Amino acid sequence: MGKGGEVSGDGAKVEGENMAAWLVAVNTLKIQPFRLPPLGPHDVRVRMKAVGICGSDVHHLKTMRCAHFVVKAPMVLGHECAGVIEEVGSEVKSLVVGDRVALEPGISCGHCKYCKGGRYNLCRSMRFFGSPPVNGSLANQVVHPANLCFRLPENVSLEEGAMCEPLSVGIHACRRANVGPETNVLIMGAGPIGLVTMLAARAFGAPRIIMVDVDSYRLSVAKSLGADGFVKVSTNNQDVDEEVIQIQQAMGNDIDVSFDCAGFSKTVSTALNATRAGGKVCLVGMGCNEMTVPLTPAAAREVDVIGIFRYKDTWPLCLEFLRTGKIDVKPLITHRFGFSQEELVEAFEVSARGGDAIKVMFNL
Amino acid sequence: MGKGGEVSGDGAKVEGENMAAWLVAVNTLKIQPFRLPPLGPHDVRVRMKAVGICGSDVHHLKTMRCAHFVVKAPMVLGHECAGVIEEVGSEVKSLVVGDRVALEPGISCGHCKYCKGGRYNLCRSMRFFGSPPVNGSLANQVVHPANLCFRLPENVSLEEGAMCEPLSVGIHACRRANVGPETNVLIMGAGPIGLVTMLAARAFGAPRIIMVDVDSYRLSVAKSLGADGFVKVSTNNQDVDEEVIQIQQAMGNDIDVSFDCAGFSKTVSTALNATRAGGKVCLVGMGCNEMTVPLTPAAAREVDVIGIFRYKDTWPLCLEFLRTGKIDVKPLITHRFGFSQEELVEAFEVSARGGDAIKVMFNL
Amino acid sequence: MGKGGEVSGDGAKVEGENMAAWLVAVNTLKIQPFRLPPLGPHDVRVRMKAVGICGSDVHHLKTMRCAHFVVKAPMVLGHECAGVIEEVGSEVKSLVVGDRVALEPGISCGHCKYCKGGRYNLCRSMRFFGSPPVNGSLANQVVHPANLCFRLPENVSLEEGAMCEPLSVGIHACRRANVGPETNVLIMGAGPIGLVTMLAARAFGAPRIIMVDVDSYRLSVAKSLGADGFVKVSTNNQDVDEEVIQIQQAMGNDIDVSFDCAGFSKTVSTALNATRAGGKVCLVGMGCNEMTVPLTPAAAREVDVIGIFRYKDTWPLCLEFLRTGKIDVKPLITHRFGFSQEELVEAFEVSARGGDAIKVMFNL
Amino acid sequence: MGKGGEVSGDGAKVEGENMAAWLVAVNTLKIQPFRLPPLGPHDVRVRMKAVGICGSDVHHLKTMRCAHFVVKAPMVLGHECAGVIEEVGSEVKSLVVGDRVALEPGISCGHCKYCKGGRYNLCRSMRFFGSPPVNGSLANQVVHPANLCFRLPENVSLEEGAMCEPLSVGIHACRRANVGPETNVLIMGAGPIGLVTMLAARAFGAPRIIMVDVDSYRLSVAKSLGADGFVKVSTNNQDVDEEVIQIQQAMGNDIDVSFDCAGFSKTVSTALNATRAGGKVCLVGMGCNEMTVPLTPAAAREVDVIGIFRYKDTWPLCLEFLRTGKIDVKPLITHRFGFSQEELVEAFEVSARGGDAIKVMFNL
Repeated sequence: MGKGGEVSGDGAKVEGENMAAWLVAVNTLKIQPFRLPPLGPHDVRVRMKAVGICGSDVHHLKTMRCAHFVVKAPMVLGHECAGVIEEVGSEVKSLVVGDRVALEPGISCGHCKYCKGGRYNLCRSMRFFGSPPVNGSLANQVVHPANLCFRLPENVSLEEGAMCEPLSVGIHACRRANVGPETNVLIMGAGPIGLVTMLAARAFGAPRIIMVDVDSYRLSVAKSLGADGFVKVSTNNQDVDEEVIQIQQAMGNDIDVSFDCAGFSKTVSTALNATRAGGKVCLVGMGCNEMTVPLTPAAAREVDVIGIFRYKDTWPLCLEFLRTGKIDVKPLITHRFGFSQEELVEAFEVSARGGDAIKVMFNL
Repeated sequence: MGKGGEVSGDGAKVEGENMAAWLVAVNTLKIQPFRLPPLGPHDVRVRMKAVGICGSDVHHLKTMRCAHFVVKAPMVLGHECAGVIEEVGSEVKSLVVGDRVALEPGISCGHCKYCKGGRYNLCRSMRFFGSPPVNGSLANQVVHPANLCFRLPENVSLEEGAMCEPLSVGIHACRRANVGPETNVLIMGAGPIGLVTMLAARAFGAPRIIMVDVDSYRLSVAKSLGADGFVKVSTNNQDVDEEVIQIQQAMGNDIDVSFDCAGFSKTVSTALNATRAGGKVCLVGMGCNEMTVPLTPAAAREVDVIGIFRYKDTWPLCLEFLRTGKIDVKPLITHRFGFSQEELVEAFEVSARGGDAIKVMFNL
Repeated sequence: MGKGGEVSGDGAKVEGENMAAWLVAVNTLKIQPFRLPPLGPHDVRVRMKAVGICGSDVHHLKTMRCAHFVVKAPMVLGHECAGVIEEVGSEVKSLVVGDRVALEPGISCGHCKYCKGGRYNLCRSMRFFGSPPVNGSLANQVVHPANLCFRLPENVSLEEGAMCEPLSVGIHACRRANVGPETNVLIMGAGPIGLVTMLAARAFGAPRIIMVDVDSYRLSVAKSLGADGFVKVSTNNQDVDEEVIQIQQAMGNDIDVSFDCAGFSKTVSTALNATRAGGKVCLVGMGCNEMTVPLTPAAAREVDVIGIFRYKDTWPLCLEFLRTGKIDVKPLITHRFGFSQEELVEAFEVSARGGDAIKVMFNL
Repeated sequence: MGKGGEVSGDGAKVEGENMAAWLVAVNTLKIQPFRLPPLGPHDVRVRMKAVGICGSDVHHLKTMRCAHFVVKAPMVLGHECAGVIEEVGSEVKSLVVGDRVALEPGISCGHCKYCKGGRYNLCRSMRFFGSPPVNGSLANQVVHPANLCFRLPENVSLEEGAMCEPLSVGIHACRRANVGPETNVLIMGAGPIGLVTMLAARAFGAPRIIMVDVDSYRLSVAKSLGADGFVKVSTNNQDVDEEVIQIQQAMGNDIDVSFDCAGFSKTVSTALNATRAGGKVCLVGMGCNEMTVPLTPAAAREVDVIGIFRYKDTWPLCLEFLRTGKIDVKPLITHRFGFSQEELVEAFEVSARGGDAIKVMFNL
C-alpha cells in the first residue's frame, strides 16, 4: 500500500482525528477520516498547512482519471503542499519537529535504470501523492520520507512552499530546454503552468519572453509578472500562419525555445512553425491525446520536440529562487480557502472555472 | 548564380560539350547542354562517373517541388555523386587531376550562426545540388568547391562514393540520436533511407535493430543486410496498438531510439508509442506535412522527437566505414543505367516504381 | 554498521562457518570467521564462487590505505566477485535461490544530489566492499542488496561475472569520454585497467587503439587482445617529446581520446601532448597524488582532463557484452587460487609482482 | 600574407598615411607606416577608435613570444578593438560606411573539422590580429572581413566595443563550464581576465561568486563590480589546505565551477581541491607551462579540468549584455592614452606594471 494510508473507520469525525479530502465519485469530494500509515524509520509526519489545487486534481474530480491513470477506489487528492513536522522517524537526522517543510510528492524506487540514471521522474514504480492508487496530501497530516521534505528558509512562507510543486514543472522544463541568457522564449498559454514556466525562464536568464493566450486577463497577469511581450490569439486553426508572424514580430528575434503550456493542436502547431531552425518546442503539462501538427516541416528545420514530465530534484533550486527573490510566486495565489466541506467544494469550483483564478490554495 | 552553371546555347549537342539532365517541366526530363561556371581559385572541375537517384529527385520530377522548394525554371537534377577531378583551381592544394572523389552537395555560407555553431546543414543560404534554384550534378561535369570533394580510398568504388550521400543521412541521424552499443533501435520503413539508417546504426554499435515495413521484399532485403528482427505491418491506423506489441516483442527489450523513415502519421504514431520512456523518435527523410499523432502521451514519458535534416561533415566517416568494410552499401545498388535520353527516362521510372528498386545509379 | 558484517567469535574455524580474508595488519592477511549481518527484506545472501584481486586490494595490504581511505580496524578485502544466491529477503522478487550473480560492490545512499542526479558513484555515503571501514567480499558468503546482484546469462561463467567489476571501470571511462566509431584512442599503460579499457573502447566502436607501456610482455598481451598498435616507452621524462611523435605516427591520425591507466606524471604528460585539440585525456585508476604536467599548453588546445571514479550502472552492459561475445575477458585471468590461508598469501604475492600476472582469481 | 598588410616604405610619416604600433624588437615599439592589403569583396576598412592592451601584447613586447608563437619579424600589436567603417567591399551588404563596429580578431579557415564542427577557435589555420606572423589592429586603419565586424548598438561606446574581446574570454569560459543559476563559482585571480569572467558568470546567473587574489586592491575592485565574497591568499604553496577551507567557508556551499585566471600551480591546486565532486575547474588565460598539481585526487572525485582558448561566436552576446546593461565593462577601463610614440610606450609600461591598471585603452 505504501505511505498513502487509508480511510479509517466509518467516516465519522473523531476529535483530533486526521481528516482528508477524498475523491469518492465523479464530482464528489468528501472530507473523511484518513488513517495514516505507520511512521517508518526514515519518514516524517507532517501537519499540512498549505495545499494548492492543480489542474490534474480538477481533472480527477471531473473524470476520475488523468491521462492513463484511473481512479478505481476512493482517493485523497492533492500534491502541492507544505506543512510543519510533527514527528520524525528513528533514523531521521536532517529534520526536527517544528521544521517548516515543502514536500516533493513522488517516491521513486531508487533502483531502476531511470533512478540510477538521474531521471527518476520516469521511474515506473513512482508513488505520487494523489495519482491513483496513491493517496494525496490534502489532509491534516501525511507521512512522507524525510528526504522528500525540504526545510523552508525563514523568509519563505508555507504557501510559497506549496508553490514549489508547480514551479518545479517550470524549472524542469527550463533545465531540459537548457534555457539561459541566449535563449529567447515563447510560451503558449498563460495559465498557471505557463506563468510558472515564464518565471522560471526569467530566473534562468532568458533575455526575452513572449506569451500567447486567448485570454486578455491572463496576458495582463503575465505582463505584470514580467513577460516582455504578448500576443492575443484566437482558437481558429486558420489563423496559425498570421499569428506566427505576429509572434515573431513581437519577439523581434529568433525564437530559440517554445514552451507549449496549452496542449492544443493549434498551439503546438504555432510553436512548431514559430521556432527557429535548430530550436526546441517543449510540451509542458498535459494536453490533447492526439494532435494534428506540422511535424515534418519542423523536423526539416531540426526543431526538436521535447517532452516534460513532472520534475526531478527541483526543490532546493525553487527554495533558493524564492529565498533570494529571483522568483516571486505570491502573485499567483489568487484565492484561499479553509478546509471545511463547503469550502472544499467551493475551492474546486473556483479552480475549475479558471478565469481570474490562477492558483487556489487551502490554508489548513 | 553560384556554382551551378546554366543551360548553354540552343540545346543542340556539340561534340565534347557538357550535358546534363534538365528538369524542364512536370514529368519531363531532357538531356541538354549545361554551361559550367568559371572555375574559382578554390574550386575543382569534376567529371561525373556515378550519380544516384534520390526520392527527392523523383518528387521534383513529378511535382516540380519538394517541401517548400519550388522549381520555377529548368534545373539540373541529381546530388548523389562521385567522379574524377579534371581541373583544379589556382589555390587548391588538397586535390590533383585524376583524383577520384565523392561530392558533398551543399555549399553553406560559412558565416551565419548555424555555420559558426557547427550546424551548417541549417544554414539559410545553403546552395545545394538539385535543390531549386541550384542546378544538380547529373551531368558530365560539374564545378564544385574543393573542400566539398573527398578523395576515395583505393578500395572504394565511384558508385560507393556516390552512396556517401544517402548514407550520410543515416550517419547524421545516428549521431543526433547518439546511437551506441546501449541503443536498441527501431526503424519504421525499409526503403533506401531506412536501410542506410540501419547500416549506420549497426556501424555505431546498436546491439539490436528491428525493422518495420508493409512490404515483405523490403524486409527480406533488410534481413539480408543484417537487421535482427522484422515486423510486417499494415497501412490500417486501427492496427497501431497491436503492432506496437508485436514490435516490442520482436525487440525483446526497451526500444531506446526509433527512426521514422516512412513519414506517415501511422508510422510516427507507432514509433511514439513503442519507444521507451526517455527515448527518442527521430524523423528522417521527408514525410506528410501535417501528422496526427499521440504527442501528449509520448511527452508524458519524455520521449523526444528529433528532426533530421540532411547531414554535416559526414563524408570522412562514410568513407572510413566503406574503406574498413564496417558498412557495405553495394547491395543497395539494384539498378544501373547509362546517361542517354532513353535510359534517363527509364531510370526515373524504375526508381519511382519502387518495389525491388532500392538505389538506381547512373554510370556516366 | 551496514551490510558488511563482523568478525565472529575467537577466530577458530567452526564447521560450515562463514570465513573471510581479513586484513589485520600491514602485509598480514588471515582467513578468519566472518559473521554476516542479518538478512534485510531487500537483501540476498550469496555464496561467493569467484573473487578477483584488484590493485587496490594489494595497496591496502601493503600500506593499510588507499588514497584518503585508511584501514583502522581488521577488514575483509575483495570486491570483484560473483557467486550463487543462497537466501533471499522477504521482499526480493527479482532473484531466487540458485541464481548465479555478479555483485556490484557499492551501496549508495539514494537520496543525495549525486544519487538523484545520476552520478551515484560520487555519493559521499557510499558503502563499498573492501573500502574501509566496510568489509569486502573475499569470503564464503556475503549479504548484499538484491538490486546490486545481477543474474548471469547462461553462457557467462562466474569468473567472467567477477570480471564485471574491473571491466566496469573501462566501460565508465568510455562512456564519460563518449567513445564511438569516430574516436581514435590512446591508452597509456597495458596493465589490467589499461586492458579492460581497451576492450571497452573496442566494444564502443573505437576504430583504432594504440597502447603504450614500458613492458613488452604487456604490450604483447594487448596485441593478442586486439589493440591496433603499440609503442614501448621508457620511464625517462626526457623522452616525452620523442615518444609523442612515435605515438602519433603509430596512430596515423588525430588522437581523440587518451586514457591514462598508469598514473605517472610522465604518462599523463605524454597523453596531454599527444591528444588533438579539443580532445580528452581521461585519468583512469589511481595514480601519483601530485603530478607535474603541461596543463597550460593542453588547455590552450582545449584538451579536457576527465576524471574517472569507479562506475555507475555498468553491470547490465558488461553482461550483455560478455553474453554476445563483443568482449572476452577470459584471457585476462592468468592465475587461479583456492581459498586456503597458504593460497591466499601466495595469490596476493603473485598479484603484487605483476609481470605476467594480469588478473589473479580465487575460486571459492 | 593575408589581411594583415605590411610595413610601407621607409618608415617616414606621410600625411594621412596609415600608422601602426610595430613590435620591432624586445621591449621596442615604434609607430611606423602600415600599408593595408587590398580590400577584398567581402572585407571592410575600419578606422580604429579604441584599442585595448592585452596581457599577451605585453608578453610579446617583453619576450617576442607567447606560448608557442614566436615573433620573427616586425609585427603590429593589438587585437582588442573597435572603430568606424570607412570603406566596404563590393559584396558587403551587412555594413555601411560610418557604422561603428567591434572587431572579432581571428579569421578561421571555414573548412577544417574544427570549423565545420562548431569549434572554430581551434582552427589550425587561424589568422589572428597580433599573433605572429599576423599583424594586429593597433593602427589607424585595418582591413578585416565584414562578417567579423559587429555593429555597435547606439548605447554602446567604441571603448565598450573594444572590451568585447576580453569579455569574450569570460563568456566562452562560462559557456564551456555551463554556468547557470545553479552554479556556485570560484574565481582564482582578480586581474582583467578574472574580472571579465566574474562579470560573465554573473550574467549567466551564477548565484554566488567568490574571488581569490593576493592583492587587496584587486579584490576591492572585484567587490565593487559585484562579487559576493573574497579571500585574500598568499603565494606560499604551504597554505593551500588552509586557504581551501577559507574559500569553502566564504562560499558556504558546494563550489560547482572554478575558473583559474591566474595560471600558477598553487592557484590551480587550490581550485582542484576546493571544487566539489563532479565539478569543473576551467583554465582560463595563459599560465605556467608545467604545473605541479594534485590531479589524481581531483580525478577521483571526477572533477574535470576544462581548457579555455579564446572564444567563438561571442560578439553578438557581448553586445547584447552591454546594450541591456546586464554587464558593465566601463569600470574596468582604468587608463587611457592617445596614439603617439610617447604615449604608446607609457601605456604599455602602465599595463605591464599592473597594480591599479586593469584595462589600458588607446583612443585613436
